[in-house]
Amino acid sequence: MTPDRSSLEAAQARLHGHVHHTPVLSSKWINQQTGAELFFKCENFQKVGAFKFRGATNALLQLSPEAQAKGVTTHSSGNHAQALALAARERGLRAWIVMPENAPAVKRAAVEGYGATVIACTPTLAAREATVAEVITRTGATFIHPYNDPQIIAGQATAALELLAEQPLDTLMAPVGGGGLLSGTALAAHYFAPGVLVYGAEPAAADDAYRSLISGQIEPSLHPQTIADGLLTSLGDVTFPILQRHLNGIHRVSEAGIIQAMRWLWERMKIVVEPSGAVPLAAVLEHPDVFAGQRVGLIVSGGNVDLTQAGAWFAG
Amino acid sequence: MTPDRSSLEAAQARLHGHVHHTPVLSSKWINQQTGAELFFKCENFQKVGAFKFRGATNALLQLSPEAQAKGVTTHSSGNHAQALALAARERGLRAWIVMPENAPAVKRAAVEGYGATVIACTPTLAAREATVAEVITRTGATFIHPYNDPQIIAGQATAALELLAEQPLDTLMAPVGGGGLLSGTALAAHYFAPGVLVYGAEPAAADDAYRSLISGQIEPSLHPQTIADGLLTSLGDVTFPILQRHLNGIHRVSEAGIIQAMRWLWERMKIVVEPSGAVPLAAVLEHPDVFAGQRVGLIVSGGNVDLTQAGAWFAG
Repeated sequence: MTPDRSSLEAAQARLHGHVHHTPVLSSKWINQQTGAELFFKCENFQKVGAFKFRGATNALLQLSPEAQAKGVTTHSSGNHAQALALAARERGLRAWIVMPENAPAVKRAAVEGYGATVIACTPTLAAREATVAEVITRTGATFIHPYNDPQIIAGQATAALELLAEQPLDTLMAPVGGGGLLSGTALAAHYFAPGVLVYGAEPAAADDAYRSLISGQIEPSLHPQTIADGLLTSLGDVTFPILQRHLNGIHRVSEAGIIQAMRWLWERMKIVVEPSGAVPLAAVLEHPDVFAGQRVGLIVSGGNVDLTQAGAWFAG
Repeated sequence: MTPDRSSLEAAQARLHGHVHHTPVLSSKWINQQTGAELFFKCENFQKVGAFKFRGATNALLQLSPEAQAKGVTTHSSGNHAQALALAARERGLRAWIVMPENAPAVKRAAVEGYGATVIACTPTLAAREATVAEVITRTGATFIHPYNDPQIIAGQATAALELLAEQPLDTLMAPVGGGGLLSGTALAAHYFAPGVLVYGAEPAAADDAYRSLISGQIEPSLHPQTIADGLLTSLGDVTFPILQRHLNGIHRVSEAGIIQAMRWLWERMKIVVEPSGAVPLAAVLEHPDVFAGQRVGLIVSGGNVDLTQAGAWFAG
């Protein structure tokens, strides 16, 4: 189930022209503060504002013409929903996105804005899965998982491939929720830059991946209380073994650290980054001894925020 | 007093390696909404987060060694203060910045962070000027005006020169406060792209430049009530004649339009732009007939914001 070297290369070739080659930014001031040389791979500038568009597009492009004709479906209220909706529209395909009925109206509108049909359901995992099953029975649509899928992982890996190709690094770090981005990042380094250390960065308030690596089994994400709303899910049986084998560790960060990292990214680098995307920088801020003197690549996973919340984040 | 063609070319050559060549960004979605092709010259990514660093550096680099040894001074609580402070530090020069005593602590700290000496004064123009005069008497420092100076104007013009060199345009637009950026932008088009129309964009609540062009004399900026805090000053006797001769007009915008433009830049383009920097996009939104079907260059003048205010801006 683990994507091999050639499937990462194939994903990169397949996505060429379909996804943005995002910029790598640096800040002299942040480097001075941290004592490290930081290279931010800015997936907040990716289509739909998040790396999720890479994996969704990679999965779609490999469906048979018959499957493409029937469309795709998923359940998500986050960036994967928007990513799948836009990836489908760009191929002229139909998409049904199952969202909990209490999802913010702005998120529903965004998905509909990309041309997908939104189906509301009771906000439980059981109801989501039942509703998706119903969509599949009715339409024959293919289910595209947000992270626990080798083609999704290979797609997400292309962000790290681009970064590694243009910048020599000592260390590479990505946030971890379900583990699609982080497992892809770890594989990219494993196959193409084997000397590079790879870390995950995770909110301490939602540290199920950290606990899973310690216990040796997938631990559930119980009542996570973090502003990093993209990192609430637990690992899957495809992503977990990759992290067990190829990760050098997970750094946990505080909520205050996430907000400080966001503040620096917004104030000093002038880029809008969502809380989840600031988690790797928070790890550098809170574990400076680990990163001092190193060239560190950080995947800034996305930039989708509700701006009305920004004042509350930064008021402290 | 008007900078000639060669002084703009000289400024560009002089600034090479001292200022960032900032990126030009576009948004497919914003283009679809406006019916125009917009090219954003992102001076929010310039050093100190604003175009002001160009003019300040251009002025400093032309001081005699004797004058450089004595340092520089200005009165400003805005981006010019930070720009002059950093430009001086990068040359190893001293800088004295006179700021009103009621200026926000964060602005004072930013200027001190760039190594300048901040001198507080009573918040009146008379007190500012008297304090600067005192500094000059005491230190022999050279006064660097924020906008009403041919070398400042030539420096600010280099943003438009970069943009025009990489993107053919029909129209070019910059915000107008004291007119340093706008007069430089107008001269850049006049000398190097004479077919391009040049507009200013100004808050209706601080429309002294608009009124000055109508009356034929410099109108004061009376009690301006706008969130575009970089555009409160009135024109000077160097900038005004350039605008009279080379500008195709000024578009006034509402406060709601400025906030909508900021929202699109932050939410859709994922860049942090200050209210003044969003004023040209607001002009496109509020005068769509003027810009439809055209290739429009917009100078995004800066990205320095107090993030604790952002929630209030976007709550509406």
